[in-house]
Amino acid sequence: MKDEKLVALFKENFPFWDDLSEIEQDTFINSSQYISFRKGTNIHNGNECTGIILIRSGSLRLYILSDEGKEITLYRLFPGEMCMLSASCVLNNITFDVFVDAEDNSECIIVGGCAYASLSERCDAAKIFALETALARFSDVMWVMQQILFMSMDKRLAIFLLDEISKVGGDTVHLTHEQIAKYMGSAREVVTRMLKYFSGEGIVELSRGGIKITDVKRLRALAT
Amino acid sequence: MKDEKLVALFKENFPFWDDLSEIEQDTFINSSQYISFRKGTNIHNGNECTGIILIRSGSLRLYILSDEGKEITLYRLFPGEMCMLSASCVLNNITFDVFVDAEDNSECIIVGGCAYASLSERCDAAKIFALETALARFSDVMWVMQQILFMSMDKRLAIFLLDEISKVGGDTVHLTHEQIAKYMGSAREVVTRMLKYFSGEGIVELSRGGIKITDVKRLRALAT
Repeated sequence: MKDEKLVALFKENFPFWDDLSEIEQDTFINSSQYISFRKGTNIHNGNECTGIILIRSGSLRLYILSDEGKEITLYRLFPGEMCMLSASCVLNNITFDVFVDAEDNSECIIVGGCAYASLSERCDAAKIFALETALARFSDVMWVMQQILFMSMDKRLAIFLLDEISKVGGDTVHLTHEQIAKYMGSAREVVTRMLKYFSGEGIVELSRGGIKITDVKRLRALAT
Repeated sequence: MKDEKLVALFKENFPFWDDLSEIEQDTFINSSQYISFRKGTNIHNGNECTGIILIRSGSLRLYILSDEGKEITLYRLFPGEMCMLSASCVLNNITFDVFVDAEDNSECIIVGGCAYASLSERCDAAKIFALETALARFSDVMWVMQQILFMSMDKRLAIFLLDEISKVGGDTVHLTHEQIAKYMGSAREVVTRMLKYFSGEGIVELSRGGIKITDVKRLRALAT
């Protein structure tokens, strides 16, 4: 008997689902598995083909990594979203290595890359879906690139802090300077210096508990 | 009568050409035009839909531009290559602005974006071709991003100089420090400082005429 929950999920997430034959649907289902990842786990590691990752709960972070261990976050993935760049055997044209970590405890479904690749050889809609999903992230990556390369640090940090409180709620960001630097592709010293500047200006209050936004209006002005 | 040269060219460059009906081929041809651009001309400017650019001779440079006028070169296009990111109406998922300049006097064929977009609605192969061509450049862009964000400046400059002499021939790079900085997404001061360092090390000789590579072996060592 088919896993009806999985079928409903695939129907919702893959627009070509109803066009597949019953055999193709079965193959698709059999190549897929539920996996839970604990916070901090590395899920995808460079150029191997982990498969397509569908996020059910939690969140994933996709990043690039330098030889010296420096990370740059490209984007995050949340429930209902899909990671296509981890399926390198589906995307022949992608030759760069990305890394994916679970940023929270996360429940995922992983669809096998080989099964999808062979399906997309027969089914144009599956191929088009994979290409469009991957290409949509190209724009996210360009945004990050422009943010890092073109924007001044104060603006970037203001945007980061505003994003965090809008995501988590409240007025306090519970991250260390080290973590913020990592997420922003910057150095801890740079983040600490800028936060001290913000604190001196009365925009934030710094404590062991985190970074409390005390003047959100000025922070917004910096971010625009 | 059809332009036989154009037909041969399309047959060579678009793998789905023979699958198109005669009417579709005619529409494709009628939406295309030969255009010559003088060196330095801006061909594509941000988010408009210029169309698909096929390069016949010369070379084009594709770059992003900050609000402050800073440029970062993403890649160059040479004869036989095709620019797909300039056809924004073909690629719905691409939301970032790129700019394209003629870097030499260049002869191009521009295929109208609207005509291609409506063709790709009916013809999966045309849609897949556009997506794959665009996605292939994602890897180039990631390479540039990693080079800029992760690599040290000496390494980057060494690679740039070696690329230039392998492209142009000879042992001298005839570019100003300002031009090199622009191409590398760096500042003139940084390039000048590094070139002086290279010169002090006997790797290059600087003169008004350009940058002469005097120790290509050491330059190669720096680049790896």
